[in-house]
Amino acid sequence: METFRLSSHPTRSAAIVSKPNKPELVQILPDLLAWFKKHDYRIMVDLETSAYVQGPKVVPREELASHPLDFAIVLGGDGTLLSAARVVSKSDIPILGVNLGSLGFLTEVPLPSLYPTLESLQSDHLWLDERSMLDCQVLRGGRSVAEYTALNDVVIGKSTISRLNHLELLIDGLFVSSYKADGLIVSTPTGSTAYSLAAGGPILMPSVSGLLVTPVSPHSLTHRSLVVRDTVTIEVVVKTGEEQVYLSVDGQLGMPLDDSDHIRCRKSDYKVRLLRLQKTFFEVLRTKLKWGEK
Amino acid sequence: METFRLSSHPTRSAAIVSKPNKPELVQILPDLLAWFKKHDYRIMVDLETSAYVQGPKVVPREELASHPLDFAIVLGGDGTLLSAARVVSKSDIPILGVNLGSLGFLTEVPLPSLYPTLESLQSDHLWLDERSMLDCQVLRGGRSVAEYTALNDVVIGKSTISRLNHLELLIDGLFVSSYKADGLIVSTPTGSTAYSLAAGGPILMPSVSGLLVTPVSPHSLTHRSLVVRDTVTIEVVVKTGEEQVYLSVDGQLGMPLDDSDHIRCRKSDYKVRLLRLQKTFFEVLRTKLKWGEK
Amino acid sequence: METFRLSSHPTRSAAIVSKPNKPELVQILPDLLAWFKKHDYRIMVDLETSAYVQGPKVVPREELASHPLDFAIVLGGDGTLLSAARVVSKSDIPILGVNLGSLGFLTEVPLPSLYPTLESLQSDHLWLDERSMLDCQVLRGGRSVAEYTALNDVVIGKSTISRLNHLELLIDGLFVSSYKADGLIVSTPTGSTAYSLAAGGPILMPSVSGLLVTPVSPHSLTHRSLVVRDTVTIEVVVKTGEEQVYLSVDGQLGMPLDDSDHIRCRKSDYKVRLLRLQKTFFEVLRTKLKWGEK
Amino acid sequence: METFRLSSHPTRSAAIVSKPNKPELVQILPDLLAWFKKHDYRIMVDLETSAYVQGPKVVPREELASHPLDFAIVLGGDGTLLSAARVVSKSDIPILGVNLGSLGFLTEVPLPSLYPTLESLQSDHLWLDERSMLDCQVLRGGRSVAEYTALNDVVIGKSTISRLNHLELLIDGLFVSSYKADGLIVSTPTGSTAYSLAAGGPILMPSVSGLLVTPVSPHSLTHRSLVVRDTVTIEVVVKTGEEQVYLSVDGQLGMPLDDSDHIRCRKSDYKVRLLRLQKTFFEVLRTKLKWGEK
Repeated sequence: METFRLSSHPTRSAAIVSKPNKPELVQILPDLLAWFKKHDYRIMVDLETSAYVQGPKVVPREELASHPLDFAIVLGGDGTLLSAARVVSKSDIPILGVNLGSLGFLTEVPLPSLYPTLESLQSDHLWLDERSMLDCQVLRGGRSVAEYTALNDVVIGKSTISRLNHLELLIDGLFVSSYKADGLIVSTPTGSTAYSLAAGGPILMPSVSGLLVTPVSPHSLTHRSLVVRDTVTIEVVVKTGEEQVYLSVDGQLGMPLDDSDHIRCRKSDYKVRLLRLQKTFFEVLRTKLKWGEK
Repeated sequence: METFRLSSHPTRSAAIVSKPNKPELVQILPDLLAWFKKHDYRIMVDLETSAYVQGPKVVPREELASHPLDFAIVLGGDGTLLSAARVVSKSDIPILGVNLGSLGFLTEVPLPSLYPTLESLQSDHLWLDERSMLDCQVLRGGRSVAEYTALNDVVIGKSTISRLNHLELLIDGLFVSSYKADGLIVSTPTGSTAYSLAAGGPILMPSVSGLLVTPVSPHSLTHRSLVVRDTVTIEVVVKTGEEQVYLSVDGQLGMPLDDSDHIRCRKSDYKVRLLRLQKTFFEVLRTKLKWGEK
Repeated sequence: METFRLSSHPTRSAAIVSKPNKPELVQILPDLLAWFKKHDYRIMVDLETSAYVQGPKVVPREELASHPLDFAIVLGGDGTLLSAARVVSKSDIPILGVNLGSLGFLTEVPLPSLYPTLESLQSDHLWLDERSMLDCQVLRGGRSVAEYTALNDVVIGKSTISRLNHLELLIDGLFVSSYKADGLIVSTPTGSTAYSLAAGGPILMPSVSGLLVTPVSPHSLTHRSLVVRDTVTIEVVVKTGEEQVYLSVDGQLGMPLDDSDHIRCRKSDYKVRLLRLQKTFFEVLRTKLKWGEK
Repeated sequence: METFRLSSHPTRSAAIVSKPNKPELVQILPDLLAWFKKHDYRIMVDLETSAYVQGPKVVPREELASHPLDFAIVLGGDGTLLSAARVVSKSDIPILGVNLGSLGFLTEVPLPSLYPTLESLQSDHLWLDERSMLDCQVLRGGRSVAEYTALNDVVIGKSTISRLNHLELLIDGLFVSSYKADGLIVSTPTGSTAYSLAAGGPILMPSVSGLLVTPVSPHSLTHRSLVVRDTVTIEVVVKTGEEQVYLSVDGQLGMPLDDSDHIRCRKSDYKVRLLRLQKTFFEVLRTKLKWGEK
């Protein structure tokens, strides 16, 4: 991991992104804005944050990346960070994830550590944990009909009634296998601790230059997660006839798919840059997954 | 396994149930009807069969159980047999499952063995493989709004976009656990080789007096399949807020569920009685799952 | 579960079985003996207990079953209880398992609850949780060369260097499958939460009339745990040529096996009768496996 | 994958390495030697091969790497190739693996394709499939007491009776987790289709720059395979008290371990260079694991 230090120019700016429907933010945000004011920051907030507090400039999340920000604070959980990261990643703005509830895989900083962390950043440095993302294109009749970027995963899954999807997987154009399954998860290393883990996949350290394809409840018992280089193109072809198939991105966005759609995934040119107090990946595994302490 | 012998009374009757859209049945059915005529059977066929051949009395599947049949032949695959079994089981009519494609877990007899099998039944006996079923009630506001009987399984699963279901499991009214998962499968021993197997569950021999609850992609990595006595009541409570939850029965029937719905499952009073040439459960495992030969 | 009440005859007797090398027992045992004296019990202790305290009659564990005891207290963990249960089960003596460390699957009562539990037993009743056991015979050249009884499991496993065992499984004399694997676990419902769980097996509620066969790291990816009725005979045949194979019973006893040995397992005629404060099976799952609370 | 072409100098040389106890080699080898003679190769054979045929120079396997060979042919299965690869990899000699039985993950060429493959190599090129290896050091009291190189994996596993190993894992000196398990497998991408797969691990394409740590039957149900960059140092510490722990390398070599031993693994500087007719990794998955065809 590299380190991140604030630049030395006098006027700094930061954005605040918040989870909706968290009443405690009404208490938290005025203090946070006061801290930023004291340290001469210009602040902008997303629409969700503006519902809790008035004063700062309001900017839709999608437009945050076009502002020259020193960093962005995300107040919420992993879900809020996922959603912010997808839009902020188009710039190089680093993200400080603050969890309002339990420890997240992505939102490392608990609320009581918020100000000590900001002070560290002000006077010293934080670690910069760069996470790769996944670009995904939906091709229909050979034409791109939708594009998404995911921090965790892209899932080609089934809808409603419990029947199998028929899917085909290609790596760099080479046929790998057909699958009868609930779905296929194409995941970044970051996403390896999300849905793929629930579906039986391995954990990839964020620094691994790889991508992960995990089948969900495959009919054939010999299927397993497949780890591939992150330079490849992963393509999933829908072969499902009349069944309803659904694409979902980070469990947050999505669209229905048609028979013969191709979902083409590649590592994104963009990265999410997470600010961290410590190099804590293993600690997160021990805390969240109860992996054995010494 | 017990044995099954045709009764000795002179006039026998049988029903034929067929899978739709199998053109080869146009060839197969006249021969089969000729065999039955030669052996003095009265024959009735379901609507699907009547699309391939004319002559015999046509009876909707749902009404077959109310006719005094010696046995029913199912021509198709496991799906056709599942669908026939749910309606035929209300009587004691045994079912001879003939697979038109590859070996099924339920449809043991391949087409070339159809007549030898019928001759065996005529002159001697077949094995009777009794399979327990699952009754399932959907309770909404304490009132039953739907009832189903399943031969394989009842699945409380998610719809479309990849988010978690929150479900609670109770056994005989005692709280077992909450689950964040794609779904919960409540399965008979017969269903243990169907969807539950894909979701990581064990195989229950059909003779086990047990039921099986298997979580699908549970968020908590410590969840496992749970095998319970078949005398218990299994209750799944939907706790999913705005997420869409869907009930599916044998992967064939189903309905959307609401928050706070209770799905109550018990072993059915009815059984499916499958006619078999051999005691072949392990052979099916070796053939279909490629378990090791000697 | 049934209930258990002490008989009404005036002179009661109990045994104390202890884990070795637990210095805290030097404090615990005199108080426990005082309690028993106050309540007019005759007490006998095993050799391990006699290392901590003097006075009571000392009886080797193997002979406890031949004394007319009202119940036995096991002070230790699941390992101590397993070892005691195998010898005590030959009688009907119920066992009260007291864990000196963390909650066990078998030793439910924590030390602070010891006296309240004994008072409950004295004045009222406890629940009686009957657990089935497994009898296992090692047949060499058709002759029985060893016999064991297990409360958890019988494992036919490999030794030292990482090579595969070749094993064959038969149920009631019918060939099921050959296995190339680290080993096969034949388990009671009680053992389903022990080694079999680590090897990927399901959890069987103690009341299920079943036995469980779980392969350990099978070479063929289609193998799964198999749940069978508890009336069957399970036979594992060693086909391993020069590899070293080892039989282990509850992870505590064992012997090396030879090529062509048959290990024959059946449900034992004996049961272990555990005394319990509550019907707590699901609570143990939630506590020990962190299954979700409400 | 790169391509491999024979150099143009006139005198070529090759080695033949054979599996012991394969009587069919008595037929195969004279033809193979004739082919090499016809094409002006100087041939050397290992001791195992010299048991089947006389004439060529005999060189112990360990010394093959010190001879200037154009390539080596391995006649046997994956086991023979593993054993040859560990010694040959010290040079750059490419290996052509010929399977005498069923398709191997490493020995791609079936016997009937041997001569067409050699002709291809003579006149054209083959693909060169470079596989990374793992160097492993056993440190006792801080001093290296043994060193191994593995193509598949290094396993720190238990011996005989079924009790748990206590192990600790460190990555680049950082504590990851303690494990109570049958063992830990440290594997190359090549080894991901060997023992790690049986233990539930993912499949890593050979081109992934990663290493794999897979626990075997971990007591804690939340442990999973961990994929790490191949630039890290993986260290396993034995914490097992009196239990017997055993190190095994590719399932072929090994030694008993002591409490507090450190097993330190890094990617080797050496690679195994496999000659291949085709880029066939996915085909091998479909053939050996029965992954679905189109």
